[in-house]
Amino acid sequence: MDEFEVETVAEVDLDEPVLVEGLPGVGHVGKLAAEHLLDELDGEVVRRVHSEHLPPQVGVAEDGVADLAAVEFHAVPTDGSDLLVLTGDNQAQSNRGHYRLTETFLDVADAFGVTEVYALGGVPTGEFIEDYDVLGAATETALVDALADAGVEFREDEPAGGVVGVSGLLLGLGGRRGFGAACLMGETSGYLVDPKSARAVLDVLEELLGVATDFADLEERAEEMEEVINRIREMESDSMDLPTDDDLRYFG
Amino acid sequence: MDEFEVETVAEVDLDEPVLVEGLPGVGHVGKLAAEHLLDELDGEVVRRVHSEHLPPQVGVAEDGVADLAAVEFHAVPTDGSDLLVLTGDNQAQSNRGHYRLTETFLDVADAFGVTEVYALGGVPTGEFIEDYDVLGAATETALVDALADAGVEFREDEPAGGVVGVSGLLLGLGGRRGFGAACLMGETSGYLVDPKSARAVLDVLEELLGVATDFADLEERAEEMEEVINRIREMESDSMDLPTDDDLRYFG
Amino acid sequence: MDEFEVETVAEVDLDEPVLVEGLPGVGHVGKLAAEHLLDELDGEVVRRVHSEHLPPQVGVAEDGVADLAAVEFHAVPTDGSDLLVLTGDNQAQSNRGHYRLTETFLDVADAFGVTEVYALGGVPTGEFIEDYDVLGAATETALVDALADAGVEFREDEPAGGVVGVSGLLLGLGGRRGFGAACLMGETSGYLVDPKSARAVLDVLEELLGVATDFADLEERAEEMEEVINRIREMESDSMDLPTDDDLRYFG
Amino acid sequence: MDEFEVETVAEVDLDEPVLVEGLPGVGHVGKLAAEHLLDELDGEVVRRVHSEHLPPQVGVAEDGVADLAAVEFHAVPTDGSDLLVLTGDNQAQSNRGHYRLTETFLDVADAFGVTEVYALGGVPTGEFIEDYDVLGAATETALVDALADAGVEFREDEPAGGVVGVSGLLLGLGGRRGFGAACLMGETSGYLVDPKSARAVLDVLEELLGVATDFADLEERAEEMEEVINRIREMESDSMDLPTDDDLRYFG
Repeated sequence: MDEFEVETVAEVDLDEPVLVEGLPGVGHVGKLAAEHLLDELDGEVVRRVHSEHLPPQVGVAEDGVADLAAVEFHAVPTDGSDLLVLTGDNQAQSNRGHYRLTETFLDVADAFGVTEVYALGGVPTGEFIEDYDVLGAATETALVDALADAGVEFREDEPAGGVVGVSGLLLGLGGRRGFGAACLMGETSGYLVDPKSARAVLDVLEELLGVATDFADLEERAEEMEEVINRIREMESDSMDLPTDDDLRYFG
Repeated sequence: MDEFEVETVAEVDLDEPVLVEGLPGVGHVGKLAAEHLLDELDGEVVRRVHSEHLPPQVGVAEDGVADLAAVEFHAVPTDGSDLLVLTGDNQAQSNRGHYRLTETFLDVADAFGVTEVYALGGVPTGEFIEDYDVLGAATETALVDALADAGVEFREDEPAGGVVGVSGLLLGLGGRRGFGAACLMGETSGYLVDPKSARAVLDVLEELLGVATDFADLEERAEEMEEVINRIREMESDSMDLPTDDDLRYFG
Repeated sequence: MDEFEVETVAEVDLDEPVLVEGLPGVGHVGKLAAEHLLDELDGEVVRRVHSEHLPPQVGVAEDGVADLAAVEFHAVPTDGSDLLVLTGDNQAQSNRGHYRLTETFLDVADAFGVTEVYALGGVPTGEFIEDYDVLGAATETALVDALADAGVEFREDEPAGGVVGVSGLLLGLGGRRGFGAACLMGETSGYLVDPKSARAVLDVLEELLGVATDFADLEERAEEMEEVINRIREMESDSMDLPTDDDLRYFG
Repeated sequence: MDEFEVETVAEVDLDEPVLVEGLPGVGHVGKLAAEHLLDELDGEVVRRVHSEHLPPQVGVAEDGVADLAAVEFHAVPTDGSDLLVLTGDNQAQSNRGHYRLTETFLDVADAFGVTEVYALGGVPTGEFIEDYDVLGAATETALVDALADAGVEFREDEPAGGVVGVSGLLLGLGGRRGFGAACLMGETSGYLVDPKSARAVLDVLEELLGVATDFADLEERAEEMEEVINRIREMESDSMDLPTDDDLRYFG
């Protein structure tokens, strides 16, 4: 295998698709949102990217068959903008890998005629929250304005430390290559998988894209997590201590 | 030295050999199983792989002579399938190293005419167990069926997180190159070297390969480990605490 | 993106400029000093360096626009020596990255006709201090003498362990390429952002360069930090414990 | 700078010199021994190796002048075997760096006509010791025998885990290139700089090389360390606890 292998799984014609990226990260917000789109809209895998920058690992599917670590592009035609949805179970494993993989992702997007990119993710607040704001960043002020109109918050010095990983680089490297790219970051505690934060991100994204989906599944999952949070809060009030990272890592 | 050096130690003709990989890992299950085959069946080292992806280290043999870190291929003709057994004291030291070494191993296997690969290892259960199931994964459903017939278990979401390292990549990269590859993973506590788990893996493997060996040595070693476990259990019931990783690391 | 990209932001003629480097480090001394020069003297960004050796990250500006991790060269004409000031929010992320980035910085400096380099930084004392000495190191004894005349201290075995990172390599690699380079290291506790230490470094630097700036802003910031230190000292005398790294990391 | 730069500092003719390596490591045994040879015998630096595999760092000499991280070869003509002594303040910073640097060192040695290599180091015992045995490893049995005759110990399974880093690779890679190479490892607690262990290693080495030096300086330094150990033992008997790594790290 070379440093990268981009496997053509299917040839699909899309009409100036919008790239939507949702890889694993804080609260799995981006990945939940991307998977929701794939569950609710008809689409198919069109490209599969393998790389030695991904973990040296196979996943095992339900039928016992092993699949080499990959990220996948799905073609999703919609009534609004056509989508090219990028998701998977893996992130790059090094700083250099983040740079190199992102360039490869942009190459694929470019070949599909993408000019607009949305990177989805979470921004940790460190505490459980009731209202889920969505923070933004973009490659140009016109895009910032459009996001603000859709309810995205822009706050000085947030997210602190900027945006890291593929989501950040889709803006940083994408902007240099002429893509219009935005990052939509749902606030989330940072402790748990957060379907409510994914919902908040999707509300914004769907308005921007002219797409509408049914949120019943995501709401059900949010209720399950709500119960987990309530149990944690009970433990907290019992022990008067915040749950430690160790208590929570099994949920995240 | 280049990135890899494949040293030809002996030229041996094998009849469509099956590659059996057992490198160090959880419970040393894979390595114990591979070494058992080498102890009980006649074979010899045919290839030795050195690489800057292995640790910067020499081992010191009983005669005081130093050997550069390596993994070795042994030719093992049998009444059943001929074997090419891959084992050693070392694993790759980086993600990229795992990818690159596995490709090199597959190159060597390919040159010997290998088309079938078994990667042996352990899967940690986190507790001492009485019954040793063997979990599986494979590159294709036909192979999954054959393994299931031989008693291998396939369970949803197990092993959690997939299969990492060379064993996983022999399936992930091997499958892409047309090898039929399977992973046989013996359940094991994850705390101790586990000859019983290696025995369970070998029971399956030997049935699949039409090979039979004498397990007296492995059983003796299993009894020694059983005594260690009993002593640990006594300590546990005294202290009512599970042994910590620190208590146990000297055994594993 | 290649390993490095040096973006030409503006073409400015400088008269044999002196390179002044102040990247993030101990007490943010070098960065504070470099930023002070940029705040007080008229200058502009002339070169921007991106690299996969920098973090895979974008910063988000006040207007919501994302900027790819970079370090920047600013042209600063002065009544004394013209300056080429190198600063930014990022350091290299690996040993090799430090070497490679420093060579790239020296290439840029060389193209501007730089022959003299000052690397600014802090040296940790481990305790809060009243008097801020500036320690030095240089590529040649003539430069050591000039620095000593300007009040720079040279002490046996200090800084212990030498000078690491870009500052050290500007001397180590710069000296090999014929640059006259010096490191000015302000003593600082190592716990907090230290404007007083930056001031001490600037006092020396400005004397050497024949430049004068107004220190009102830096003094104001120093007073704010003085209050933080006083609060910490009160906590110390209450608890009779030194503040831990954890207590302090939010300030540094 | 390229990946490696081998600077020719002086041209000196040596008569089939023996390479003696003593870089920093356990108890600083190898480095102490190499420096003792340089202090007691007349020699001079002939080659200086810089590399991006060394730390990104400069040392600061007593005169304030900075020196880029390096390892140095010293030519040391003696009445016995001429020596090429390799020492410095730095080790490689990665596994790959160890491999690549060692090959570079062997290239330099080869150019000087070296055929025999001694790698000096320490082997940790985990406790303070009275008698300092020297353990060995070598590239061939004839060399093992010669070392055994000089009092070097060869023990089964020692050193546990083999020999790591440059010392190990001088045997592992050197042996493959036809060098006769041996490792002399002085037993040492592993907690402190250990001049006594260095003395034990030198006793063996000098017998093998037909060289004799005055050990007054090393004995003086050993007495100083003996006082440190006695103070630690008093602390131990007071607290009935072994000193922690933290207590001791300032000495090692």
